[in-house]
Amino acid sequence: MGSSYRAPLEDMRFALYDVLGAEQLFAKLGFDDASRDVLDAILQEAARFTETVLAPLNEIGDREGCTFDKATGDVRTPRGFREAYEKFVDVGWSGLVSPVEFGGQGMPHLAGLPLKEMIDAANLAWGNFPLLSHGATEALLHHGEAWQQDAFLKPIVEGRWTGTMCLTEPHCGTDLGLLKTRAQPREDGSFDITGTKIFITAGEHDFTENIVHLVLARLPDAPAGSKGISLFIVPKMRVDRDGAMGERNAVRCGALEHKMGIHGSATCVINFDGAQGYLIGAPNKGLMAMFTMMNTARLAVGLQGLGLSDRALQNAVRYSRDRLQMRSLTGAKFPDKPADPIIVHPDVRRMLLTCKALVEGGRVLGYHGASLVDVAHHAKDAGDRQQAEALLGFLTPIVKACLTEWGVECTYHALQCFGGHGYIAEHGMEQLARDARITTLYEGTTGIQALDLMGRKVMQQQAVGLQVFLGMIEEFCNAHANDESLAEFIAPLRAKAAEWQALTMQVGQRAVADADEVGAAAYDYLFYSGYVALAYWWARSVAAADASSQSAAFKAGKRETARFYFARLLPRTAMHAQAIASGAGALMAMPAERFGD
Amino acid sequence: MGSSYRAPLEDMRFALYDVLGAEQLFAKLGFDDASRDVLDAILQEAARFTETVLAPLNEIGDREGCTFDKATGDVRTPRGFREAYEKFVDVGWSGLVSPVEFGGQGMPHLAGLPLKEMIDAANLAWGNFPLLSHGATEALLHHGEAWQQDAFLKPIVEGRWTGTMCLTEPHCGTDLGLLKTRAQPREDGSFDITGTKIFITAGEHDFTENIVHLVLARLPDAPAGSKGISLFIVPKMRVDRDGAMGERNAVRCGALEHKMGIHGSATCVINFDGAQGYLIGAPNKGLMAMFTMMNTARLAVGLQGLGLSDRALQNAVRYSRDRLQMRSLTGAKFPDKPADPIIVHPDVRRMLLTCKALVEGGRVLGYHGASLVDVAHHAKDAGDRQQAEALLGFLTPIVKACLTEWGVECTYHALQCFGGHGYIAEHGMEQLARDARITTLYEGTTGIQALDLMGRKVMQQQAVGLQVFLGMIEEFCNAHANDESLAEFIAPLRAKAAEWQALTMQVGQRAVADADEVGAAAYDYLFYSGYVALAYWWARSVAAADASSQSAAFKAGKRETARFYFARLLPRTAMHAQAIASGAGALMAMPAERFGD
Repeated sequence: MGSSYRAPLEDMRFALYDVLGAEQLFAKLGFDDASRDVLDAILQEAARFTETVLAPLNEIGDREGCTFDKATGDVRTPRGFREAYEKFVDVGWSGLVSPVEFGGQGMPHLAGLPLKEMIDAANLAWGNFPLLSHGATEALLHHGEAWQQDAFLKPIVEGRWTGTMCLTEPHCGTDLGLLKTRAQPREDGSFDITGTKIFITAGEHDFTENIVHLVLARLPDAPAGSKGISLFIVPKMRVDRDGAMGERNAVRCGALEHKMGIHGSATCVINFDGAQGYLIGAPNKGLMAMFTMMNTARLAVGLQGLGLSDRALQNAVRYSRDRLQMRSLTGAKFPDKPADPIIVHPDVRRMLLTCKALVEGGRVLGYHGASLVDVAHHAKDAGDRQQAEALLGFLTPIVKACLTEWGVECTYHALQCFGGHGYIAEHGMEQLARDARITTLYEGTTGIQALDLMGRKVMQQQAVGLQVFLGMIEEFCNAHANDESLAEFIAPLRAKAAEWQALTMQVGQRAVADADEVGAAAYDYLFYSGYVALAYWWARSVAAADASSQSAAFKAGKRETARFYFARLLPRTAMHAQAIASGAGALMAMPAERFGD
Repeated sequence: MGSSYRAPLEDMRFALYDVLGAEQLFAKLGFDDASRDVLDAILQEAARFTETVLAPLNEIGDREGCTFDKATGDVRTPRGFREAYEKFVDVGWSGLVSPVEFGGQGMPHLAGLPLKEMIDAANLAWGNFPLLSHGATEALLHHGEAWQQDAFLKPIVEGRWTGTMCLTEPHCGTDLGLLKTRAQPREDGSFDITGTKIFITAGEHDFTENIVHLVLARLPDAPAGSKGISLFIVPKMRVDRDGAMGERNAVRCGALEHKMGIHGSATCVINFDGAQGYLIGAPNKGLMAMFTMMNTARLAVGLQGLGLSDRALQNAVRYSRDRLQMRSLTGAKFPDKPADPIIVHPDVRRMLLTCKALVEGGRVLGYHGASLVDVAHHAKDAGDRQQAEALLGFLTPIVKACLTEWGVECTYHALQCFGGHGYIAEHGMEQLARDARITTLYEGTTGIQALDLMGRKVMQQQAVGLQVFLGMIEEFCNAHANDESLAEFIAPLRAKAAEWQALTMQVGQRAVADADEVGAAAYDYLFYSGYVALAYWWARSVAAADASSQSAAFKAGKRETARFYFARLLPRTAMHAQAIASGAGALMAMPAERFGD
């Protein structure tokens, strides 16, 4: 059986068109081809593909997993995965948001988001294969020389090859300054790459004839630490400067990891044994090159959390309407049935509405983040670009951490609605929970997102992104200051925005005296920020729905969910604010040895 | 590799002797054999058994799982499980807390708790086999006729047979009033039992020659709903009234469930096909008989959450002291190493201290609950027994729900400390997370615990248990009113106790007008209660440590953890209080069809 998935096209369109004004935005940014007709066609086709091709493979992927042939180093993906990839490429989706000159369709980044969300919801493990190609695409696009783009970028955009990001080593993940993989110059200008990388997603598979690894390594004369890391292109099959594919490179999968979930995704140990590679970007600037693609990669992982949350919610709603158990406390609602469906019970509604508020609000939050990528790259005005860049940098760790932690939370609630049946593989709910668990770990753990927000975006960059966002909130509140129907949301939103500002100042001041205050506040500050941001998007969603041509039921649904959010989830900010206010003392007092044996 | 486990004997002794005064309590209740020497010997031997026998089998159990032979209906447990059970029985632990007259050791219930916690931490899946025997023991003890006790109770206490509880059917779990299994009287006074039960833990296995199922079923003339359910003893191998074991009964395992975790635990579909059974207790009073064992069963599942939390914490602490990654924000703490151990980072400490505060505080909370079972049964004074019974009823859903939800939370944090490595099976952290996930589902979901607390213990019983607990808090606060060293805890504790009282009144008043207010407040009320209860136990722990002969380091550790708890976790009450105050409106407004397709 497993869980099922239906693409939430109505709410996606609402987020895109009614809340975020995607049509007007794309026109303003010069994306002439991204008309509503085109976008709707993409949505329709994406729904068909993900619902009928990818979703049915989700359970198979979990059960079969990828298999590793120790003798050859080959990896076989689960039944049907390869064929699904071929269909994906045939439709042209590998290049949907890539530039036309490299064989892409040149659509805005935001236009690719609903497809991305649907893929993640339908089959997260499968989705990691094209996702990693996207990372490689960006690296090559922004840092590749012309010949490298011709030789490597085009085949990836066309889907003929896939890409990977090879960062982590056994002793270093977060702290890449410690990495040991070496690059030795050859006489022909290329390099011998030697070292072992772990946790390489899509590192080896049977989808394509070649795989392009982007590998962080050290040049012989490199400075120690993070300032001595360079980025290299290391293909599985050797490729010369004319783009011709040659024989096998000295790159080999050494093992597959056994994981809690995403079994269909190949998580590889990759050994480079004097493999031929090409330097991409400037020497010793590899980490900076990685940073350019970090925002989109992190937003993408956030979308994974969102997709899983939505799928989990859909199944929990269906189950809660079907499962008969006990009577409503206010008297039987379906006296002709042996019991009432569990959706009549307040506590089941609490779980479902929590998911609904986080999913629909999170969708706008995530899509808005993606729209900033387009603005930052394509706005005509340099000031607009700069402002979008600042806001994007500020929101990216919030989107990544919140959507993934909410993914864990929503898959938890949804499973809980099934009672003991949720724990049984047959219903597919436990797979969603296991799959969701990776998202708060990879592409920077939640703690790392929090530190990026608090340390870099708030402290180092004086919270310039926050000021932009607070400006948006103020503008919205002012525009609706006399709107009776929104007053219930505007007042608390204004109060929270003021408190957000004050908390930011408070931590900033304390951090001057003690750098640990930054780390001590980071986690709670990030979630405080996320919940206030979501309050803003929920208030705007109600306003957008009311102003739209949506049905009365749709408008009522938005308002009811927003009310639930303000009544039941926004209070989480009180807990985070108190934790922030308590400072670093309670965290730092205990000596390491006293934590336990 | 997997995760490791070391029994926390020092903290267990602290909880038992210094905080809860177990020695004095046992003496007062007339347990003359439960001296400190005896208890310490049990602790030592339990630590040895669980650390060296059970813990190493934990990973094997997960990997191998139980296997089902469709042809015979037999279930094989994982390698080593059966031998471990034999050792367990040889030591006499199957009867540790059972009465001497039935072959038990007659120890108080509380004295069995540390052993229980160690078993759950070492090997949750294995622990379910003896746990289910304990449930059957209680049913037979309180409701069995003399011949039933001789025939069935003795072999279970001696560990020669095991027991099960057969409640759930495919269409009913929480709502047992819907159950369909039938009992047809035979001429000899026994019954033919026919029906299908699911989710039967330890329903079939290779540990013992017989299994005693306690089965809920309906007599032919039974009233509809929950008032027409009777309890029956249905052994796998037939047993006559003299206790002689005969041929195979018509009881058969139909399938094993494939679960998210506790793979080593046999979760069976059990088919009764006219199997011979004996009525236990009065006809149509089966649910009431089940209720008598509910408190201890729920406390026991709470302990499972506690055990897993502790094991997860232990491994996360070790990893966080070993794993080198980045420098402290306040400058290198170990400049001679390539990076600092991650335990220097505030956010890692946040996760570890959260677990530590919930584990050590939760241990006292859980053990205290267990001590009430002893008082309720053995206190000389009827008023004392009654008061303990009321407090036990009030605290049981809190202990069950909090310790299990905290188990999910702590295994989450501990895995998170490992970063991506936590997601890999090799480290064993993901197994702990998967195993913990069942505990908030079985023996009544968290939502059901909340409803039991709010509906039954607060509304129906006028919160009499709460008043007892508030009395304990007040007594403690008054006794330490002039104690400067405790002032930082006493003041907020007093404030929270007053708020607890006020919130209870508030919900009670609203519920008079609208019964859905009970369900709407239940979840948040339960956790509000849990965090205030934990604040009390943390304040008492600091007081108890200071008054004890523990080392200065131990005392400092308790104070530091208590401070963390008050600064960082007690603020969760603010969120719960706001959610309670918001009422049922936001939960109940949306029509069922609007939740989604």
